[in-house]
Amino acid sequence: MVNTISVLGSTGSVGRQSVAVAQRLGIKVSAIAAYSNIDLLEEQARRLGPRIAAVFSEDAAGELRQRLSDTGTEVLSGMDGLIAAATEESAGCVITAVSGSVGLQPTIAAIRAHKRIGLANKETLVCAGRLVMEEAARCGAEIIPVDSEHSAIFQCLAGKRGELRSVMLTASGGPFLGWTREQTRAVTPEMAVRHPNWSMGAKISVDSATMMNKGLEFIEAMHLFAVGPDDIRVVIHPESVVHSAVEFIDGAVIAQLGVPDMALPIQYALTYPERRAPSGRRLKLSDYGSLTFREPDLEQTPCLALAMEAARRGGTAPAILNAANEVAVHKFLRGEIGYNEIYGCVDSALSSIYYTDDAGLEAVLAADRAARIHVEEAF
Amino acid sequence: MVNTISVLGSTGSVGRQSVAVAQRLGIKVSAIAAYSNIDLLEEQARRLGPRIAAVFSEDAAGELRQRLSDTGTEVLSGMDGLIAAATEESAGCVITAVSGSVGLQPTIAAIRAHKRIGLANKETLVCAGRLVMEEAARCGAEIIPVDSEHSAIFQCLAGKRGELRSVMLTASGGPFLGWTREQTRAVTPEMAVRHPNWSMGAKISVDSATMMNKGLEFIEAMHLFAVGPDDIRVVIHPESVVHSAVEFIDGAVIAQLGVPDMALPIQYALTYPERRAPSGRRLKLSDYGSLTFREPDLEQTPCLALAMEAARRGGTAPAILNAANEVAVHKFLRGEIGYNEIYGCVDSALSSIYYTDDAGLEAVLAADRAARIHVEEAF
Repeated sequence: MVNTISVLGSTGSVGRQSVAVAQRLGIKVSAIAAYSNIDLLEEQARRLGPRIAAVFSEDAAGELRQRLSDTGTEVLSGMDGLIAAATEESAGCVITAVSGSVGLQPTIAAIRAHKRIGLANKETLVCAGRLVMEEAARCGAEIIPVDSEHSAIFQCLAGKRGELRSVMLTASGGPFLGWTREQTRAVTPEMAVRHPNWSMGAKISVDSATMMNKGLEFIEAMHLFAVGPDDIRVVIHPESVVHSAVEFIDGAVIAQLGVPDMALPIQYALTYPERRAPSGRRLKLSDYGSLTFREPDLEQTPCLALAMEAARRGGTAPAILNAANEVAVHKFLRGEIGYNEIYGCVDSALSSIYYTDDAGLEAVLAADRAARIHVEEAF
Repeated sequence: MVNTISVLGSTGSVGRQSVAVAQRLGIKVSAIAAYSNIDLLEEQARRLGPRIAAVFSEDAAGELRQRLSDTGTEVLSGMDGLIAAATEESAGCVITAVSGSVGLQPTIAAIRAHKRIGLANKETLVCAGRLVMEEAARCGAEIIPVDSEHSAIFQCLAGKRGELRSVMLTASGGPFLGWTREQTRAVTPEMAVRHPNWSMGAKISVDSATMMNKGLEFIEAMHLFAVGPDDIRVVIHPESVVHSAVEFIDGAVIAQLGVPDMALPIQYALTYPERRAPSGRRLKLSDYGSLTFREPDLEQTPCLALAMEAARRGGTAPAILNAANEVAVHKFLRGEIGYNEIYGCVDSALSSIYYTDDAGLEAVLAADRAARIHVEEAF
């Protein structure tokens, strides 16, 4: 078990739960970082006594610096602050729970500092999976997924990556499962953020509704577990009890099941390779009665189809997909575009932005910027 | 992977499949053993060229010895023959696929000869679990379960026995799931041997119907995985896709799933700790649509309730239960008693036979004999 961690995105849903799990396990938090929520950052800093509190927004950082002037916590800002939090010396593990591709550079910095990565920022692998995995292998840094699905796959594999044949990535299907494109036209932000099984932030809730989230997870799984796109099957499983599964070369399927609770994968990333007793609810299969499984309907979930296509193209396509989606979802949340236009934005970005097979950091960051500008300006 | 095996019970369902798996993997079979089916034994001996062919029945052994006189296979008989087959020098693994408590002594002999045990004879652990597990630990002999459920649990554990919290033992519920005692009164042997999911021998098919099989597996699991009776939950799962599951101390549940095919657990016992590619069908969860789970109704399955009670009593109680059941099932198959009387026989044996906390080999064999005589004579 690690004894000190840094939490990037400590004010978000996974970040707050990571802090809670760390406190329950007696793990020290030596760095926290967030975009701009300085009220919560201040409270966390006073409660946890970290060496570093990083705020991405420069203005907010100035304010927090004043507020925390009576403490021993150093307040940093911008990408440099995020990277300093990611590489804080005493932290054995960095939980990357920021939202969006802003997580890429601090994750690479943490890998180079030989930290264990508790990966909750899927955009890092979506945008630059090959790069990040190669860097992790080179530096001997462990990447332990914190996403419920990828943690499940990681647990099922139990280190036997060489015997993996395929991955079954389960998906709840979100709140609009089975709705036609005609029906989803009128979906509002309020409707989209209400997820049936998981309580999450707004961006990821919308991604769950469009199933873009499953598409990003699809790409993430390719990199994390070194499998090709034809060896990942998305299975709709509305009960979210089977968190995902792997099929081994001998035909045995190993699945991880549990109640929907992010505390478990967060804790596992910190205690791995051991497990510790939890305080949460226990799964009782007979309480569910029946668990259902079906193939996704790609006509009804065009964002998932787009992501699978980008996964097959590789290169900078996933970075374009991800950045375009990020901007489109925020536009939707601000009421600037309709629900179905999220797909339109991403599709347009993928067919308009210069694409290259090179997925080096520069190419990825350029593709990311170009896709953002495209969606900001064209819609 | 082992390169030479001995198959006890080579003419039965699991035995024949073990031979087939071994041949597919290029594993040599150096000993075969069966009760009396010398036609198949002769065919197997000519095909596999084992050093030993053991026949339990003395008369049949004489006949087989004549038939195989032109081969290099030595024909042995009785318990000595079975033990010689179990300890054949070149075999690295012994598949114990005989039916009934006759498997106990050869299994112990194989353990003492430091063989890996591919355990398909559940009566061995039911009758003398503590003894057998202690002997295996002392001799450093691996016991790899071949039963579908126990292989699943073994696979899910992946060596992390210290972190096991509970076991979920799934049960199809058999062909009479939901039938009342009144309804099962008229069950005939023909009805009882038709299992909905698995093709098996007659004895185990009847045990599946009464759910005594699940009770025996319950006791077996206690010994194999060192869990108490309160930490094993039987879950009715008619689709037989989830072969069983474990719950770890952190609340994570790991399940093994697959199509119903004994070739997989047999192969895993031979290739462990590795896996090899199979030739069989692949599991596709979306083909099933829904998987169902419910608690067993112990009123409707009194044999399961009896077994769980014997498990809690320990000592020689499981041996009495098992022997009484074995004789009762054979009486039922011969048309001598009705289906519901199987329960009556076992219940009577458990309340009539002298019981002791001592579960040493002598006490177990004495309890086994006494229970057999009791059921033979009293019904």
